[in-house]
Amino acid sequence: MLFDTLAIFGVGLLGGSLGLAAKAKHVARRVIGVGRSVSRLQEAKLAGILDECTTDPIVGITRADLVIVCTPVDDIVRQIREIAPHCPHGCLITDVGSTKRDIVENLCGTASFVGSHPMAGSEKKGATYARADLFQNRVCIVTPHKNSEPASVRRIAQFWEALGSRVVEMSPEQHDRAVAYISHLPHAVAAALAGAVDPVHLAIAANGFKDTTRIAAAEPAIWEPIFRTNRDEVLAACDRFAEQFDTFRKLLAADDGAGLIHWLNEGKRVRDAVGS
Amino acid sequence: MLFDTLAIFGVGLLGGSLGLAAKAKHVARRVIGVGRSVSRLQEAKLAGILDECTTDPIVGITRADLVIVCTPVDDIVRQIREIAPHCPHGCLITDVGSTKRDIVENLCGTASFVGSHPMAGSEKKGATYARADLFQNRVCIVTPHKNSEPASVRRIAQFWEALGSRVVEMSPEQHDRAVAYISHLPHAVAAALAGAVDPVHLAIAANGFKDTTRIAAAEPAIWEPIFRTNRDEVLAACDRFAEQFDTFRKLLAADDGAGLIHWLNEGKRVRDAVGS
Repeated sequence: MLFDTLAIFGVGLLGGSLGLAAKAKHVARRVIGVGRSVSRLQEAKLAGILDECTTDPIVGITRADLVIVCTPVDDIVRQIREIAPHCPHGCLITDVGSTKRDIVENLCGTASFVGSHPMAGSEKKGATYARADLFQNRVCIVTPHKNSEPASVRRIAQFWEALGSRVVEMSPEQHDRAVAYISHLPHAVAAALAGAVDPVHLAIAANGFKDTTRIAAAEPAIWEPIFRTNRDEVLAACDRFAEQFDTFRKLLAADDGAGLIHWLNEGKRVRDAVGS
Repeated sequence: MLFDTLAIFGVGLLGGSLGLAAKAKHVARRVIGVGRSVSRLQEAKLAGILDECTTDPIVGITRADLVIVCTPVDDIVRQIREIAPHCPHGCLITDVGSTKRDIVENLCGTASFVGSHPMAGSEKKGATYARADLFQNRVCIVTPHKNSEPASVRRIAQFWEALGSRVVEMSPEQHDRAVAYISHLPHAVAAALAGAVDPVHLAIAANGFKDTTRIAAAEPAIWEPIFRTNRDEVLAACDRFAEQFDTFRKLLAADDGAGLIHWLNEGKRVRDAVGS
């Protein structure tokens, strides 16, 4: 087994799925859940996600050799700063935050910390939707900092690989730029699309509308700090998108058939490269 | 059986699925395919989609009591004008075009024509992807014109209902406005989103990006005339979207957390009303 005791901070969709996956893949012998709600932690324990649970962070990490922080992105630094001095010797810490530059900059003094971002979210919320296969065949980005020890980075990568993910290593800056286009911009666009529709039209909504707007159903309280901790990159991505969209509007206004086909082909070429 | 002989013009994803569905649901005794490519028609016949096929429109309709035109949206009027004078007495004609105002206005002199738009597309192309259940539990919009006989409208509605669809009757104008927001704008947005991404970032694309951009993989040659025949409504929808998106950009630029949560909640409320 790669780890003996895994402590998960924040047992929602991601944290809960990590518990299930770590047990299903025999990556950790024991999974401890740490959270604020005793009843939700007990539910997760009953659901087989956790072996033990506690609301006390310091109790939660007592015997941990891996801590994964799955709290909202603007709470991760605080949480790790609180527990790092109390972690057992050799214990590694990672997180699943959707932005990395802010988190990694603030924690680069913590040698045991290596940032992660599994690209495995969902618009659903809560451990009820946890799945042991959530990380299977997904990308997990690992973002070391200048004080990260190569052995620790390797061990965190092995953890994600053991859950079935493909690990990609990036700098926090590269990560934040890439997810601005691949995740944050699409989220803003999906929400704008949903918000632009008069609800009277929803009766005829079909798969196209459902797919395009699906992620707009995600929890605003989770996404607000994601956008804010990646503001510069998201704003740049917004401008790039607005330019692209404006080209479409102008081509259509000019009734430029050949131009529209060319423009649509650009998007199709990119989308075709991604696969279903 | 509702119809004896169904003639399908254009045996692609929609036309092919209509053939399979009409046979599976015993809605027509015989299905005739009309197209330009003998080899593709023969393939569809071998796949059990068609009973007979021909490249001659007039031969195709000889014994038909229902003709469904599934050719690109800018070819439908021409096609129906060509065959309508030769259709047997009592034969009804409908289409599956994604815009309706232009088509219905041009065909309102044809009493046997009633416009339809099954909301059951896909980014896939060709009869290879045809499915007997494509219309099951989908909305089909039926758009009568001023000379449509109520009995004909009822019969066309019955046809779609027999395939498992829920029929919604709208004026062509109402239809074109609704699909501008529910289908055409999302298509343009998906293509702009795909086109805005530097392909170097695609390696980390996950479900969010895939869902949001899926329809951008559709055939540009199909979509260019859809946009152009619904230009005014699509341009108005573009402006409404651009305004909504710009609000997001401004809130983020101002680092307005409460404003972002409020804005994200607006989109979430609409998306939650649609269901998965």
